[in-house]
Amino acid sequence: MWPSHGSNPHYLYEAAGLSLPESFLDFSANINPLGPPAVLQERWGDLFYGIGTYPDPHTASLKEKIAKREGIQESQILIGNGGAEIISLIGRLIAGKKVMIIEPAFSEYEKACRINNCDVSYYQLSDGWDIHLDDVIEKLSGKDAVFLCNPNNPTGMYYKTRIMLPLLEACKRENCLLIVDEAFYDFVAEYESLIPYLKEFPQLILMRSMTKIFAIPGLRLGYLIADGGLIEKLTDCQPHWSVNSVAIKAGEWCIEDERHISRTIQFIHSEREALYQFYKENNFEVSNSAINFYLLRDKESHDQYPLFEFLLKQGIVPRHTFNFPGLEGRWLRFAIRTSVENVRLMEVMKAWRKLNP
Amino acid sequence: MWPSHGSNPHYLYEAAGLSLPESFLDFSANINPLGPPAVLQERWGDLFYGIGTYPDPHTASLKEKIAKREGIQESQILIGNGGAEIISLIGRLIAGKKVMIIEPAFSEYEKACRINNCDVSYYQLSDGWDIHLDDVIEKLSGKDAVFLCNPNNPTGMYYKTRIMLPLLEACKRENCLLIVDEAFYDFVAEYESLIPYLKEFPQLILMRSMTKIFAIPGLRLGYLIADGGLIEKLTDCQPHWSVNSVAIKAGEWCIEDERHISRTIQFIHSEREALYQFYKENNFEVSNSAINFYLLRDKESHDQYPLFEFLLKQGIVPRHTFNFPGLEGRWLRFAIRTSVENVRLMEVMKAWRKLNP
Repeated sequence: MWPSHGSNPHYLYEAAGLSLPESFLDFSANINPLGPPAVLQERWGDLFYGIGTYPDPHTASLKEKIAKREGIQESQILIGNGGAEIISLIGRLIAGKKVMIIEPAFSEYEKACRINNCDVSYYQLSDGWDIHLDDVIEKLSGKDAVFLCNPNNPTGMYYKTRIMLPLLEACKRENCLLIVDEAFYDFVAEYESLIPYLKEFPQLILMRSMTKIFAIPGLRLGYLIADGGLIEKLTDCQPHWSVNSVAIKAGEWCIEDERHISRTIQFIHSEREALYQFYKENNFEVSNSAINFYLLRDKESHDQYPLFEFLLKQGIVPRHTFNFPGLEGRWLRFAIRTSVENVRLMEVMKAWRKLNP
Repeated sequence: MWPSHGSNPHYLYEAAGLSLPESFLDFSANINPLGPPAVLQERWGDLFYGIGTYPDPHTASLKEKIAKREGIQESQILIGNGGAEIISLIGRLIAGKKVMIIEPAFSEYEKACRINNCDVSYYQLSDGWDIHLDDVIEKLSGKDAVFLCNPNNPTGMYYKTRIMLPLLEACKRENCLLIVDEAFYDFVAEYESLIPYLKEFPQLILMRSMTKIFAIPGLRLGYLIADGGLIEKLTDCQPHWSVNSVAIKAGEWCIEDERHISRTIQFIHSEREALYQFYKENNFEVSNSAINFYLLRDKESHDQYPLFEFLLKQGIVPRHTFNFPGLEGRWLRFAIRTSVENVRLMEVMKAWRKLNP
């Protein structure tokens, strides 16, 4: 069985029936290639002294910083043990309800809905990955909640406010929650915040992750922004002390480093340009990504599996797409990594093209 | 409102309407006073390099070590983001069922039951804290699950196998889960493992914590041992990557340090002897604790609140018992801390006695 997510490549090699090479480059996890802000390594030693006491169960200090940064109330924030916990809490909130998932999307939404006996339907983006609003709104009738990943995982596409607003208005009319997963919003150069619309649209729920942009997936840290009443309900279901003290403190330090975010955006942009130029010249098709990962397929091949296997054997680890409904392996997903890693990826792609002109 | 747990004393002072003193000693959290095993501080720097990748969602390496130590299969283990997450997962397993809680007990059981719409009843231990088996077994009819904290929190009492076995047998007859929270089992000098009974009694669930004995509550780490089928159901409800990579690695290192555990047991034993001698001489009543915390009340006072307030003002932080059913403030709970801290506690208690002979 294919692993349900990227990272931990040994599970992927095992599933593919291949032995793990001595060294490999992992393009399967969408983590900031610049790593965490420098402060985290500098002050890492200090964090040891916090492990002997329980974390603040209300994560008050981190909430305060997020509230200030986003111009919202602390009562509108829930801090979670990673985005996955937040999705799991939302699943409980909408247990048994009628839910629409805009696919392809992060696979945890469907898992959370299934566990909570939701009645799930899908709006399937087609390969251009555009949202056809009329179609979505038509399907909205009677729904209690819609999941939309924006920027989208796995395509990397970003839907601007002009797309989101009519959807928000339709959700308001239908009294349907609009759950927007913004796990990768920090990577978008021209990000347009939906926060100003929270007041007018109490149906809006924004999910955020701090593990991608600050490269701390091992620590687990995410947050959710919503109406205070919803936050209370979600908090009721959250285990006590769910967010560990290392993550809380790291989050407080990282969130103040705006320069790290702007440097990251610039870096990703220039690497993506170089990669996309190469792909164009070598006849690979890619999704119109605004962020730090993209979908790719070899236009010359009907079946992408030989490319997938070739890459794994060469120590290049893409993210398979077998468990993304609507993709089912027809594309591969790649993170944008460091320059050295991206250059190596292009070399291996070139070798593939030579063998498969 | 009183905080629902110990630790984070500023919430307690706030609730008591007192200002936080410049320095205080926190006896409200039941953490090993010897701190974590030395290896954790020595290798803390290495842990930084793990935060940039996702934790193993299957926590395979830690499961392997626990399985080996306990002589069980990895499929019988679930690793959790602290005991609180494990209790929360059990709550989902028994949603809507008839549950008995043996009180006083850790307050998270009741919270998990309430959130999951369980029909909760209680067996109330009286102040000698003995379990009267006939009474429990009589109340067992029709129940789906029983929570028992052993060693008990907040009393510190330990119930040996001769108490547990008849209860296990009764639970088997009634097809009722027996959920034994062994969060503090490592502190018991003459601990008798229930693991050999797992095969005969698939109704048995054991909860364990690694945060108390290894003094890492900030990291969050616990595990559950049960029948493989139950583990699968619980795992389905657990968020992906729920256990962070720092906790996983720290757990692997700590679990191999058996000497740290035996040193801790010896230390706690000798400190408890000294404290109990003092309490006897000064007319304080204490529970018959086998571990690293105990209940205390001033035999001379009907109301324990003045003592509680006196201690807080002196910078001694006990755990209030307002939210322990059957205690409601009639006792105070104290952790056994370092020798220096325990001596300071006795000084303050002596001062109280002088004022209240």
